[in-house]
Amino acid sequence: MEGKRKIRIGILGFGTVGQGVWKHIKEDRAALERRLGVKLELVRAAVSDLSKKRGVKLAKSKLTDDPYAIVDDPKIDIVCELIGGTKLARKLTLRALANGKTVVTANKALICEHGDELFTAARKEGVHYFFEASVAGGIPIIKTLREGLVANRFPLIYGILNGTSNYILTRMEREGLSFEEIVGDARDLGYVEADESLDLDGWDAAHKAVILAYLAHGKWVNLDEMLVEGIRNITARDVAYASELGYKIKLLAVIARNFNDETLSVRLHPALIKKGEIMAQVDMVFNGVSLTGDVVGTTLLVGRGAGQDATASAVISDIADAVHAIQGAPGPLISEEDEDIYRQLGEGLTLAKPKSVESAYYFRLRVRDEKGVLAKVTKAFSDAGLSVATMIQHEEPSDGSAVLLFTTHVSNEAAAAKAINKLEQLDPVIEAPFLLRIFNAPEM
Amino acid sequence: MEGKRKIRIGILGFGTVGQGVWKHIKEDRAALERRLGVKLELVRAAVSDLSKKRGVKLAKSKLTDDPYAIVDDPKIDIVCELIGGTKLARKLTLRALANGKTVVTANKALICEHGDELFTAARKEGVHYFFEASVAGGIPIIKTLREGLVANRFPLIYGILNGTSNYILTRMEREGLSFEEIVGDARDLGYVEADESLDLDGWDAAHKAVILAYLAHGKWVNLDEMLVEGIRNITARDVAYASELGYKIKLLAVIARNFNDETLSVRLHPALIKKGEIMAQVDMVFNGVSLTGDVVGTTLLVGRGAGQDATASAVISDIADAVHAIQGAPGPLISEEDEDIYRQLGEGLTLAKPKSVESAYYFRLRVRDEKGVLAKVTKAFSDAGLSVATMIQHEEPSDGSAVLLFTTHVSNEAAAAKAINKLEQLDPVIEAPFLLRIFNAPEM
Repeated sequence: MEGKRKIRIGILGFGTVGQGVWKHIKEDRAALERRLGVKLELVRAAVSDLSKKRGVKLAKSKLTDDPYAIVDDPKIDIVCELIGGTKLARKLTLRALANGKTVVTANKALICEHGDELFTAARKEGVHYFFEASVAGGIPIIKTLREGLVANRFPLIYGILNGTSNYILTRMEREGLSFEEIVGDARDLGYVEADESLDLDGWDAAHKAVILAYLAHGKWVNLDEMLVEGIRNITARDVAYASELGYKIKLLAVIARNFNDETLSVRLHPALIKKGEIMAQVDMVFNGVSLTGDVVGTTLLVGRGAGQDATASAVISDIADAVHAIQGAPGPLISEEDEDIYRQLGEGLTLAKPKSVESAYYFRLRVRDEKGVLAKVTKAFSDAGLSVATMIQHEEPSDGSAVLLFTTHVSNEAAAAKAINKLEQLDPVIEAPFLLRIFNAPEM
Repeated sequence: MEGKRKIRIGILGFGTVGQGVWKHIKEDRAALERRLGVKLELVRAAVSDLSKKRGVKLAKSKLTDDPYAIVDDPKIDIVCELIGGTKLARKLTLRALANGKTVVTANKALICEHGDELFTAARKEGVHYFFEASVAGGIPIIKTLREGLVANRFPLIYGILNGTSNYILTRMEREGLSFEEIVGDARDLGYVEADESLDLDGWDAAHKAVILAYLAHGKWVNLDEMLVEGIRNITARDVAYASELGYKIKLLAVIARNFNDETLSVRLHPALIKKGEIMAQVDMVFNGVSLTGDVVGTTLLVGRGAGQDATASAVISDIADAVHAIQGAPGPLISEEDEDIYRQLGEGLTLAKPKSVESAYYFRLRVRDEKGVLAKVTKAFSDAGLSVATMIQHEEPSDGSAVLLFTTHVSNEAAAAKAINKLEQLDPVIEAPFLLRIFNAPEM
């Protein structure tokens, strides 16, 4: 390897993923160096607490509690931003880009909130910003979308993008247990992020959906323009009834573009999908993404969406692309040209009105088990314009209530909201009505 | 687009895929040109018969029956070799490379047989040779293996790589029909290649397995060193009994590397896989590939493995990479450096002895329905060292024969061959004994 250029890497944040990246680069350095035609040096990692015990032990000289000792070190070529969060991470990323460094990140929240600014900064500085690890961990979804399927436009992208909620839903389904009974295990296993709302209320997957929507359609969607619902309110009974009807419940991101009226819908919510769908077999911590391209048809990718090793694998593949870019390869995304591409991709595209999005629905109601209640409920549905497809009633003798479960034929969000409103107002309805969407995957 | 470099493309072969590539580049030219930052010109296509009617109509000036008018045209930058076969295709590819052109191909047989020579030629000329479309059609498996999962070594790669046989097996399973009853439909639909043996005897998928094995392990495996079995001898009864036991039958390529003793096993045969596996849900003309990497864990890709549009999508993604390479990007594969990589990947690696490969087995026997036959058959198994796991007997009153179906516990190919040999010699066995392997996918 004499005479090979040396590429120096600094890591911001030495948590699970940072340690994984360090460990795997160290272990596989020879193979990676051969593959990339350069020498690699892990310069140092920045942490907030030097005294904390970590699985991967570093010499004192390799650890710093000053992140600027990385982003301002003129010798460092590639900065891996693995601290998470959006404030310090944004500041350090902008500084690293301004210093001419290539940045690799796994930070979906940062890209979702500040992608436009960060991409513009990278473009301005003539450097690159890589983020394969930010969506679906080890699944090379960004590369597939941007390079492998470059010949395509994408009417539909959907998938399971949050491993934690998929783990909880899978165990609820397999064991017939409630959300509360499983979520504790997920916490114990370290699957739930410190900010639990990211996993349990859907925000983590929503961030990823926003990134995919931008890459496929050139449009940044604000989280507050999106329908985002998590899995907290799903009960064991919902899962069991869905199963009876031939469905599983999965937390799905759905990115649908209508090329006729040029509207884009980006949403994140639990949905019933048919058990026979491959996506329904994506269980436990796995992620899955289905891409329907106008040329290639449907391609589906399944793999580990999180965890030290899978995420490290994605970060290292970005480091490999970064090494290529530093050696003069045209980057995959960020250049003046590409800005044009994304702008043109999104040109004339408007967000679909959430109320107009179509779906079939599943409703759960708790009612006082009294005469005439069913007539009232079904009238509420029909007044809202919803047509009932299936119904089942579970009586609960202990308190004289009953749980009613319905599915409807395809309608839209406006009608569903109207139905919820009407049902809420019915006197025998004693709990807030609960709704799930039924997602009908197109024929592959 | 003023001042943008013009990249000129010539196409050898204007069959299904060639027409698909032409059509999609023409239709999506503006988007592709924006994306690639160049202008694209489709110069001409070479065919063997100018008078043949084709779905995609070209002006006379765009068609030629002289392929050298493409490979020798100094203006052409990228040659797409889509004629298939290995003789003329090899000659034209070598000539195009020698003329300094970048070549894109979908020709798996050519790479399987002459990959080493072609890669060396490309390297020598300092040009690139791209072949994403040669394996698994629209699934970006080559890119995933070489770039997306660059941080990994691969103990196991397996999958469904031939859409035609998968179509036949899927319909046999769904409709309970025989191979003979379905294969005619597959022919009518144009799914079966002119050389039927490619699809029905497994050679097409074997070619693809050889390419994946080289990319993952740096070793060219000769077809005659491989176990290659197609699907012709599978009966409706095999499919039904497999189903009873919880399995589907799929034609699988299996590429397994043991990093302890540095042996590589590459094989292609029908196998029973558990219905619950995602791979078992890959039905009809779809392909699926499962990659287990030492860092990322298991990633699975599913998509259209063949057909005009899916293959065109892959060819166009290679054209995009070719455009990048022509503009100075380091290529993904072929350079002096990379030759080293692949040589080193394969260094010290030997092919596993076929007889040592382990598996559980399924056997089908037809016997005369007479006293003591079961004792003889089970003795043959135990003499061969095989331990029976399940057995079922179907009597056929019409001719006094019976069909015996067995599964065994895990053993190896040597013991299975010994069992076949012993069973053949038993007097009551009136048909050649038939064997299938049972593939136990590792935990994802």
